[in-house]
Amino acid sequence: MKKAIGPKAMILPLPAALIVTGNFDHANIVTIAWISPLTSSPQTVGFSMGTRKHSYNLLKDTGTFTVNIPSAEIMKEVDFCGINSGAEYDKFVQTGFTKVKSNHIDSPMIKECPINMECKLVNEIQVGNTPLFLGEVLETYVDGDKLTETGHFDVSKINPLVYCTTVREYWTLGEKIGEAYQVGKQLK
Amino acid sequence: MKKAIGPKAMILPLPAALIVTGNFDHANIVTIAWISPLTSSPQTVGFSMGTRKHSYNLLKDTGTFTVNIPSAEIMKEVDFCGINSGAEYDKFVQTGFTKVKSNHIDSPMIKECPINMECKLVNEIQVGNTPLFLGEVLETYVDGDKLTETGHFDVSKINPLVYCTTVREYWTLGEKIGEAYQVGKQLK
Repeated sequence: MKKAIGPKAMILPLPAALIVTGNFDHANIVTIAWISPLTSSPQTVGFSMGTRKHSYNLLKDTGTFTVNIPSAEIMKEVDFCGINSGAEYDKFVQTGFTKVKSNHIDSPMIKECPINMECKLVNEIQVGNTPLFLGEVLETYVDGDKLTETGHFDVSKINPLVYCTTVREYWTLGEKIGEAYQVGKQLK
Repeated sequence: MKKAIGPKAMILPLPAALIVTGNFDHANIVTIAWISPLTSSPQTVGFSMGTRKHSYNLLKDTGTFTVNIPSAEIMKEVDFCGINSGAEYDKFVQTGFTKVKSNHIDSPMIKECPINMECKLVNEIQVGNTPLFLGEVLETYVDGDKLTETGHFDVSKINPLVYCTTVREYWTLGEKIGEAYQVGKQLK
């Protein structure tokens, strides 16, 4: 029996990405679950940031940002960056996160995150009263120790933090159960 | 040591949502991982659909769609809907999925998915050569047996299918490790 619960964008699961805006000396971190790839050529990501004024101003200043995918081990730090303002805290100091210089842009990456993307802001679209930011991915990095011996990504080593919206819970990943673009062929 | 792997929108994890377009008699299902909440008031979702022509035409015809969140149990059916065109297959027939009449729109929902959202298309934005569709959520449904005794959502019962992009793998969720908006308070 399906129960109506009112209009909720209950998309499960979501990532819990850390967006770094600003330059190396004046950088801020904000936690964003409303983020998705948008186009494949060029590789573009979009994220919705609401009224995060501090990050918004830094983002408009530099026109660049990094997307950092955290592991479940740093859940508390990720949550801290989501519930506090950069106007009040230097979140790098407060979390103990280490800034890593980017190669193509001024915004730094977070060393403690196993996946990092350098992005150039290419558009801002107003959706209702919320800005949607579009960024072209210029380069992506993965920690070398998260690769398998054959050079493939090992998701269990990356151990990404998972966010479940509506219930507001953090989860881990469980186990790999199938290859996409493959397992559905059995139904033909 | 961080290794550059070229520009990849490697956002982990992503949902594997089933979008139903068209009306009850002529409906199609497409699998979309590039989907996210975008605004909270009203509750709006956005998804990027690339060149899925069959779903695109149906979506433009009715101006409505449903978002259906699958459980890991129906991974093969989800994958089937992602790798085949509705021009070739009636995906409801091929997967055995059951159509459920929506209450506010003509597009049907999928009974076998534990979470369903009725959505009205409110905008289409061209991002590069890919359309981004914005839909207002009119109503959301959860299977009653996925609720706890106190009426809360039990994510382990919903058991959502997880998609890991770049590696192209399906995963399950593991375990709940923390309450969002709470665990980060310990760092202050």
